[in-house]
Amino acid sequence: MPSYTAPVRDTQFVMSDVLNLEKYANLPGFANADTDTINAVLEEGGKFVSEVMFPLNQVGDHEGCTRHEDGSVTTPTGFKEAYDKFVEGGWGTLGQNPEYGGQGLPHIVSMAFEEYMSSGNMAFGMYPGLTAGAIAAINVKGSDEQKQTYMPKMISGEWTGTMNLTEPHCGTDLGLIRTKAVDNGDGSYRITGQKIFISAGEHDLASNIIHLVLAKREGAPDDVKGISLFIVPKFIVNEDGSPGARNGVMCGSIEEKMGIHGNATCVMNYDDATGYLVGEPEKGLAAMFIMMNAARLGVGIQGLSQGEVAYQNAVTYANERRQGRALTGVADPDAKADTIMVHPDVRRMLMDARAFTEGARALSLWAALQIDLAHSAQTEEERAEADEIVGLLTPVIKGYFTDKGFETAVNAQQVYGGHGYVTEWGMEQYVRDARIAQIYEGTNGVQAMDLVGRKLGRNGGKALMQFAQMMNDEIASAKEDEALKPLAEKLEKAGGELQAATMWLMQNGMANPNNAGAGAVPYLHLMGIVSLGLMWLKMARAAQAKLTNGSADDPFYQAKMITARYYMDRYLPDAGALRRKLEAGAESMMALPEDMFARA
Amino acid sequence: MPSYTAPVRDTQFVMSDVLNLEKYANLPGFANADTDTINAVLEEGGKFVSEVMFPLNQVGDHEGCTRHEDGSVTTPTGFKEAYDKFVEGGWGTLGQNPEYGGQGLPHIVSMAFEEYMSSGNMAFGMYPGLTAGAIAAINVKGSDEQKQTYMPKMISGEWTGTMNLTEPHCGTDLGLIRTKAVDNGDGSYRITGQKIFISAGEHDLASNIIHLVLAKREGAPDDVKGISLFIVPKFIVNEDGSPGARNGVMCGSIEEKMGIHGNATCVMNYDDATGYLVGEPEKGLAAMFIMMNAARLGVGIQGLSQGEVAYQNAVTYANERRQGRALTGVADPDAKADTIMVHPDVRRMLMDARAFTEGARALSLWAALQIDLAHSAQTEEERAEADEIVGLLTPVIKGYFTDKGFETAVNAQQVYGGHGYVTEWGMEQYVRDARIAQIYEGTNGVQAMDLVGRKLGRNGGKALMQFAQMMNDEIASAKEDEALKPLAEKLEKAGGELQAATMWLMQNGMANPNNAGAGAVPYLHLMGIVSLGLMWLKMARAAQAKLTNGSADDPFYQAKMITARYYMDRYLPDAGALRRKLEAGAESMMALPEDMFARA
Repeated sequence: MPSYTAPVRDTQFVMSDVLNLEKYANLPGFANADTDTINAVLEEGGKFVSEVMFPLNQVGDHEGCTRHEDGSVTTPTGFKEAYDKFVEGGWGTLGQNPEYGGQGLPHIVSMAFEEYMSSGNMAFGMYPGLTAGAIAAINVKGSDEQKQTYMPKMISGEWTGTMNLTEPHCGTDLGLIRTKAVDNGDGSYRITGQKIFISAGEHDLASNIIHLVLAKREGAPDDVKGISLFIVPKFIVNEDGSPGARNGVMCGSIEEKMGIHGNATCVMNYDDATGYLVGEPEKGLAAMFIMMNAARLGVGIQGLSQGEVAYQNAVTYANERRQGRALTGVADPDAKADTIMVHPDVRRMLMDARAFTEGARALSLWAALQIDLAHSAQTEEERAEADEIVGLLTPVIKGYFTDKGFETAVNAQQVYGGHGYVTEWGMEQYVRDARIAQIYEGTNGVQAMDLVGRKLGRNGGKALMQFAQMMNDEIASAKEDEALKPLAEKLEKAGGELQAATMWLMQNGMANPNNAGAGAVPYLHLMGIVSLGLMWLKMARAAQAKLTNGSADDPFYQAKMITARYYMDRYLPDAGALRRKLEAGAESMMALPEDMFARA
Repeated sequence: MPSYTAPVRDTQFVMSDVLNLEKYANLPGFANADTDTINAVLEEGGKFVSEVMFPLNQVGDHEGCTRHEDGSVTTPTGFKEAYDKFVEGGWGTLGQNPEYGGQGLPHIVSMAFEEYMSSGNMAFGMYPGLTAGAIAAINVKGSDEQKQTYMPKMISGEWTGTMNLTEPHCGTDLGLIRTKAVDNGDGSYRITGQKIFISAGEHDLASNIIHLVLAKREGAPDDVKGISLFIVPKFIVNEDGSPGARNGVMCGSIEEKMGIHGNATCVMNYDDATGYLVGEPEKGLAAMFIMMNAARLGVGIQGLSQGEVAYQNAVTYANERRQGRALTGVADPDAKADTIMVHPDVRRMLMDARAFTEGARALSLWAALQIDLAHSAQTEEERAEADEIVGLLTPVIKGYFTDKGFETAVNAQQVYGGHGYVTEWGMEQYVRDARIAQIYEGTNGVQAMDLVGRKLGRNGGKALMQFAQMMNDEIASAKEDEALKPLAEKLEKAGGELQAATMWLMQNGMANPNNAGAGAVPYLHLMGIVSLGLMWLKMARAAQAKLTNGSADDPFYQAKMITARYYMDRYLPDAGALRRKLEAGAESMMALPEDMFARA
């Protein structure tokens, strides 16, 4: 049977030894976050996930959610009890605004817990995950009254939230949405339309569900400039804050889908439902992007998390399963066969997984720290810089982590041979669950266009220059250490490929925008590879410092150095190939007339 | 709803224009195979698949197979009727031995039909597919009596066959098998043991099932040298050839698995079942490899076939779905949005699929022709050469086609966005079905070791030298044509990477076998990329000849030239990266002690 252990030691290593979290202690928001508190949260959080959430992962996949004739939805056996414990433990409050009942811990702490939660039970974790996205929008764009009404109960987890964007005929192109909002003249609107693919759209976990819905007001432009954001509660909230009358929003059906069966993916029908405008009219897209950016980071973390749990189980299997003999001679003469851990190709899949998950964990925590700095750094300049870099890395984290996370789950399944294909071992669920993360909250192709078309050139390319500067500094400093120099040199070469690819895009993307489109996904992957390479160099520096300062025998730091070498050996070579694909441009990609694709 | 059209024109192009099948007409075995006959088989076969098999693909996935208390198994609704039509149409007889009722058509023809069948319904296609593997073993290793008893009814499809290798504790390492054979002294044996993952192990399609079972005779060595192959019929065959007494072999359960639900994956329990030795005792592994090699090619074709059907549906969707506008300006001013076919990243996924499937189709048909030549070429030398090259390419076709086929299905699903994740659209089934092909009949890691450890060096590396010679000749001749020269130059560069990687393996694999193991999968992929590149150069030459000789306006040949350019632009760059990964060797891959993989 599968198992999961939160990688607490690795999280702590990144926080303390790589990012030196202690040095931020003087910043507002870090006041409550001394090392002991953080360690307690990580350990208790990891335990909660292993003991409460993970045991429901296969049950949730097997049972799925059930819609009843009255439109109500039941979650799988055990989900309600587990969610009650989640609320009781305050696990949704970690990084939230203390004015409304949050613990005000840094984002880096809540990000670490989010990874554990998604590893333990991705479908379950989406209920609080979507809630957090909805809270983010209300926190920034909501009126004081809206904040008072909704945030405390959403932060505690008593109520959950959703994001309602997609309609049957449109997902990526939100300008096409047809859901209408008619002004009641009393500060409320009547919302009518159909939304699809609404995760956590209806369920039995919470006493109210706060839907955030994109719609067009009467008379607004019929394109993206006409979109407004509305709060539509399942139960209209009474003056005293309690859930009141049932609103005109119903779950019409649940999608039958490839994975994340424990989460109800709903068709939501709005029929003159009462809604409340969030922020300014016709500025819904900006408000939506607040939810969306939080959600995109969360989805990136799902990629990491499914890779992590799949990796852990593949390790267990590889250490137990005996098949064949080591190529270098019998490893275990007492047994009729060696464990498959002796086979290089099994190692390849496990080391690939290890190098990706640890690198991605470091990047996710580093990005979360930048979010904290964007809120709390001492100068306006530092805050702006941190904000820019988060903007740049958000599509990379979403796109690269989910592509590699899926691949990692597939490889971990491969370690099991035929048993990986059989349901009871649990591996094929990770593959099916991980697959959605490449699609939702903007497909990875959309992420790549966000990176290349929007983020790269923003403010004169400031964020990328910042990123390059940080790379150069790290490489220069690492080159002065004999143990780190070979790693730094390999990363420098890959960084050169990224720089060349960037130059090519600048020169050729203007002349023909299809060149930018044709190179977008290779560029995103190139940036992902180099970003994780940078994290590996940082981790190697931190580990090397420990090894030479009293911890020479600690296998944890030894493993870091080996995995850093592996990353540079086996991930960086793709940088050159990606650059060359990108430099091939759009010509052969776009030359075939549309009607010549179908088979005759 | 999904659809499938057999790519008959493309098959014909490869057969006639690329491989010039007509020139083999004088060879035995090609006598019945004039162009008209082949075209009729392809067209009727494609129609049969589209009309009879494909409509049952989603039904089969949804219903799966059902085991009843008595151990009998029912296939999904419609499978029995479709199988009867399959038998009636003689679709299993195409390439089979005419002495036993086969049509004796060349393998190249049956291979083409096999692709269509696997595209139309992979789970269904496995019933005759496994039968063909079992026939192959009996045809080569069986006694005359065994051939007379089993082959006619297996070839007609009245009976089906299976391959019983895997046991709960062993798959790859067959030396560990525990199934026992006790001599009855009358030419028969009593077989006892448990086999798992037996595809098509029990079902209601045929009146008898002929199991080919690996077991160890009493007193035989307890390793691979002690393995014998036995025929164990479900019903013992009477003197008159009719199925008689029920044998002691039962389906114990059906595995719940990720995909291919329409095929019954059985645990088979043998309890003093009557079995008959095939070939010599303790030579079971050689007999098994006859089945296995046929099966491995068939599994490679499954990778191609799932990529093909997924591609076709993604094209339909991309031509219908409207979302956003072309980067180069509005393409369709009459609609509120352009079709997603205008977006370079959608094109990227479709062109990737097109370049892979057409290249793989060419390679599979070329390999099938080599099988024909291995049987029928005029000189012993030609026959031996053809046989060697099939041996070399079998692991490449199995491993590379299934890895890329899975990736192609995943990309085609991605074209659908969220709809790709929803069951009813059918795309996620292709992904789940395609996944098994990377695992069964020897995982792709095992294929890579077969290539690097066995095939590469066999007979002094003769097959590889032959392959290199063919590459060089093709490139040299293409360089003389201005239209082909740029393609040839790119392929030459990739060929150089393959050559360098081969040299590195020779020099470093001897010194440390783990270097060979660590480079095996990258090498297999490198060889796959270059092999398909060679096929694309051959196809481009054939298409160019048509374009300059009276068919300048035929979009089919224009499309070939565009796709050839795309292949060279977007697939070949990976060759260099794969070489560099391989040249990194085993050091960082094997350095981590086994007990340091688990998370603390």
